[in-house]
Amino acid sequence: MSALPVPPLVDQHCHGVVRGDPDDDLFASFLTESDLPAADGTSFFDTQLGFAVRRWCPPLLDLEPHCPPARYLDRRRELGGAEATRRLLGACGIADYVVDTGLGRPGELLAPRELAAAAGGAGSHEVVRLERLAEGLADRAGGLSSFLDELATGVPAAARTAVAFKSVIAYRHGLDFAPEPPAPAEVRRAADRWLVGRAPGDRLTDPVLMRHLLWSAAETALPVQLHTGFGDPDLRLHRCDPLLLTDFARAVRPTGCALVLLHGYPFHRGAGYLAHAFPHVYADVGLALTHTGARAGAVLAEMLELAPFDKLMFSTDAYGLPELYVVGAELFRRGLSRLLTGWVDEGAWSSGDAERVAAMVAAGTARRVYGLAPGDGASASFG
Amino acid sequence: MSALPVPPLVDQHCHGVVRGDPDDDLFASFLTESDLPAADGTSFFDTQLGFAVRRWCPPLLDLEPHCPPARYLDRRRELGGAEATRRLLGACGIADYVVDTGLGRPGELLAPRELAAAAGGAGSHEVVRLERLAEGLADRAGGLSSFLDELATGVPAAARTAVAFKSVIAYRHGLDFAPEPPAPAEVRRAADRWLVGRAPGDRLTDPVLMRHLLWSAAETALPVQLHTGFGDPDLRLHRCDPLLLTDFARAVRPTGCALVLLHGYPFHRGAGYLAHAFPHVYADVGLALTHTGARAGAVLAEMLELAPFDKLMFSTDAYGLPELYVVGAELFRRGLSRLLTGWVDEGAWSSGDAERVAAMVAAGTARRVYGLAPGDGASASFG
Amino acid sequence: MSALPVPPLVDQHCHGVVRGDPDDDLFASFLTESDLPAADGTSFFDTQLGFAVRRWCPPLLDLEPHCPPARYLDRRRELGGAEATRRLLGACGIADYVVDTGLGRPGELLAPRELAAAAGGAGSHEVVRLERLAEGLADRAGGLSSFLDELATGVPAAARTAVAFKSVIAYRHGLDFAPEPPAPAEVRRAADRWLVGRAPGDRLTDPVLMRHLLWSAAETALPVQLHTGFGDPDLRLHRCDPLLLTDFARAVRPTGCALVLLHGYPFHRGAGYLAHAFPHVYADVGLALTHTGARAGAVLAEMLELAPFDKLMFSTDAYGLPELYVVGAELFRRGLSRLLTGWVDEGAWSSGDAERVAAMVAAGTARRVYGLAPGDGASASFG
Repeated sequence: MSALPVPPLVDQHCHGVVRGDPDDDLFASFLTESDLPAADGTSFFDTQLGFAVRRWCPPLLDLEPHCPPARYLDRRRELGGAEATRRLLGACGIADYVVDTGLGRPGELLAPRELAAAAGGAGSHEVVRLERLAEGLADRAGGLSSFLDELATGVPAAARTAVAFKSVIAYRHGLDFAPEPPAPAEVRRAADRWLVGRAPGDRLTDPVLMRHLLWSAAETALPVQLHTGFGDPDLRLHRCDPLLLTDFARAVRPTGCALVLLHGYPFHRGAGYLAHAFPHVYADVGLALTHTGARAGAVLAEMLELAPFDKLMFSTDAYGLPELYVVGAELFRRGLSRLLTGWVDEGAWSSGDAERVAAMVAAGTARRVYGLAPGDGASASFG
Repeated sequence: MSALPVPPLVDQHCHGVVRGDPDDDLFASFLTESDLPAADGTSFFDTQLGFAVRRWCPPLLDLEPHCPPARYLDRRRELGGAEATRRLLGACGIADYVVDTGLGRPGELLAPRELAAAAGGAGSHEVVRLERLAEGLADRAGGLSSFLDELATGVPAAARTAVAFKSVIAYRHGLDFAPEPPAPAEVRRAADRWLVGRAPGDRLTDPVLMRHLLWSAAETALPVQLHTGFGDPDLRLHRCDPLLLTDFARAVRPTGCALVLLHGYPFHRGAGYLAHAFPHVYADVGLALTHTGARAGAVLAEMLELAPFDKLMFSTDAYGLPELYVVGAELFRRGLSRLLTGWVDEGAWSSGDAERVAAMVAAGTARRVYGLAPGDGASASFG
Repeated sequence: MSALPVPPLVDQHCHGVVRGDPDDDLFASFLTESDLPAADGTSFFDTQLGFAVRRWCPPLLDLEPHCPPARYLDRRRELGGAEATRRLLGACGIADYVVDTGLGRPGELLAPRELAAAAGGAGSHEVVRLERLAEGLADRAGGLSSFLDELATGVPAAARTAVAFKSVIAYRHGLDFAPEPPAPAEVRRAADRWLVGRAPGDRLTDPVLMRHLLWSAAETALPVQLHTGFGDPDLRLHRCDPLLLTDFARAVRPTGCALVLLHGYPFHRGAGYLAHAFPHVYADVGLALTHTGARAGAVLAEMLELAPFDKLMFSTDAYGLPELYVVGAELFRRGLSRLLTGWVDEGAWSSGDAERVAAMVAAGTARRVYGLAPGDGASASFG
């Protein structure tokens, strides 16, 4: 098979791009999940992600691939952040952005519509982060009863404009939470404990309230995205294994919501198993590809073991830098293309099946799960 | 190395084939470990296993590889289930079937001898499932004392005709059970609790009784097969990590029984470690290859890291469809052959060692562990 | 890229080589992490490590690669252990040995300087094993107070000559220990419990004392090496997942010590994550490469996913046999070279970056972390 046609992508989980020109330190900080400075004598550019950025992005700013970081950052400043963003997003082949708007300080990041406009007229869709929603309501609430009332109406209200919810209970508690919905009295007590003495902006970490949010979201029947696997060191990774969600997945199935397990690395095979075992569970390739660079195809291959091909979705989890959309999309398309054409060439798959699977993972399943309009872009070939 | 000779296989863990013609839904249900229907808009054929079935089986029914599922199912019906079974099993190159007879409703599946006959005169050997044995005794027992008496004689009696025991404590409880044998008084109390109010056919889920069964089986010195790793969503996969068996493996070693860790995926490297660390522990490639299709060679490669080459055994874990024997055997032979010839070609292994290892994993170790007669079939070459 | 230059290696974690001629059983016992005899009908030579020894070592003793084990052992005896050691170490391309001296009976193994001399003038550096240090002090201590006093001065005293500390709390307890330093009164009580009735030579297994040792070592700001992942069956592998160290890594960071996570297999991706997430955490490829032989490159590739390239270090973890240095070094250099030249050839990396990363992992990072003098050996090319 000489080349695999891949349709324009739906990025089923991403964040915004920073406004203006990031300085060098801020730029480097977006290349890592660490929230700490690099060790003395080391650089966040000396990672698979750093090398992948240097492979794919310089040519879009008229430089040679693999030029030194300083040269790249100079050129980026020369062009200005807005132009760099326009060039980078314009080249990444993403037709629709499904944006988790719950990250970043107010105004720090481009809003979904601005992002889509910068990409040259892509579609944009919002994912509402449950913990941020609750924190906003708590900031504004007059007291316990009004908070609970607003929560009861706020989640269904958000469901009218968002295409999905997102939970970061993995970060704030771990995925080893009690699978059943908390009783109303429990929720009330937990809310009371949380609100007393809470300062505006304080984060929600109470597992009872986060479980209540998850169940409230599930009852809207909108898909619920869950962070699983690696992320910044706020989390304890051994408590973010998606398999810890097994009982919750079983319990929540009658609501009719889809559960989308994000990232998952290094437990992504477990995420694939859950997508195999439960009809309402989906898995995502996101962050794992971006951060593994030259190894992204190998990681993607592991996702293509147990996960049914129609239960796996592309995303970049890009945050802050337009470079991360470019890298996420390139690594995905090239990794997928190499794998699938390899299987076709050895006779294990038919070329028709390979094209069909590529279309599902790149865009089709996300369009179905989030109810997006059919894409109309032509497929580009990667061989 | 142009081709690797692989002897006729011993399938060291499989189940039977359904009698008669499975309808389309039943056929599809055997392609997944899920016990739920496929999600709307998805098909169990769109999986690595589905693609592997479409790669290897249509030619055996006079069709092109990768023909559409509906065409394959039509042709299968046209030939009839018995003829399809005869053709498929006849082509799979398995010389001996070691059959766990504890799955399926009575009469639903071909018995071991029928299976071997349909395969054109292969050997068949029985594995007794401990939980099913205890459930059968409980169905027929007059009371607590007679149940305990029958259990005490039933396990050694089964050992006289079976070649191994099997436990599904992974499904019914998890592998995080207490490693030591339960005391007689504990067993008596657990049996009493279980029998009171038990309806015929009720499944055994009591960990004390399952541990008692495991120890009773071990004391016969017959090999004990344990399900580990993924399976249907009855289990909670994070409690099926074979490493959770470490203390049990250490405790049971003095009995002289071999422990055979089935499947293991995605924890198969841990199973390889236990086979490395303990002389009486063996690992199996079974289900993990069948369900990962085009990726089976990659998964097999991971098993060939820590597991000593003489501690690893082939199986299909096939259940219901003769297609699963074909796929399991093809994926194993081709994956093994590609890996080993690759290592020979790069000078890492000698060709003599590669042939020796292929013979061990394909059949030799299973013949030794289960006490089967030496095979007499000629090796076929796969390059 | 035709060949990747790799500088002389720093082996950042190894043990000594046995004096004299090991007999055949002793030789075979060093090929496995098992502390038990091989199962009937099996041989520790039939492993990836056994095959790798037979691939790389016979030519250094004037034999053909892959000659039978008995032929190799005969020739080794013919040459004598000292000459075999001289030939094997002389060929392994290791410039500096960082030696954990806490393994082996007194006098059983060559001391670091003897090892370096046998290698033809390499450098040698000592790693002090904390548990052995405490056991030695307990053997000689007059009572509780003198033991605690000697511990308080012994750790900083060791830091004046050693380049790092090592802990085997993974073996003796598991990595799921309380992350904070134990209070002095707790330490005193634990020491009292341990010393009462202790026979000379008894091993330290008390988690309070081991945590106290870890914190005492960290406060010297010397690097602390921690065994993680597989090893002999003394450990329970599911309690040796490096991710269980997350809270300890966070707690210990203010001391300024580096944490070096050894081995990690099969949890090495988690070790890579911690090296990614925390500036003071480093990961090691050691034992995992040696024991996976023809698969070492695949395992190394998994380490090169999340671990920043300047946070990953080579080691052999060789113990007892000079053959293990040869195998560890060859597998590392060839695996790394194949991976990196492959990435250069497909355009994912530049050749300059590949050379830079090879130099970091082979030696540069270890020289920085342990404060070793710059190497002066020329790079050898591996393509």
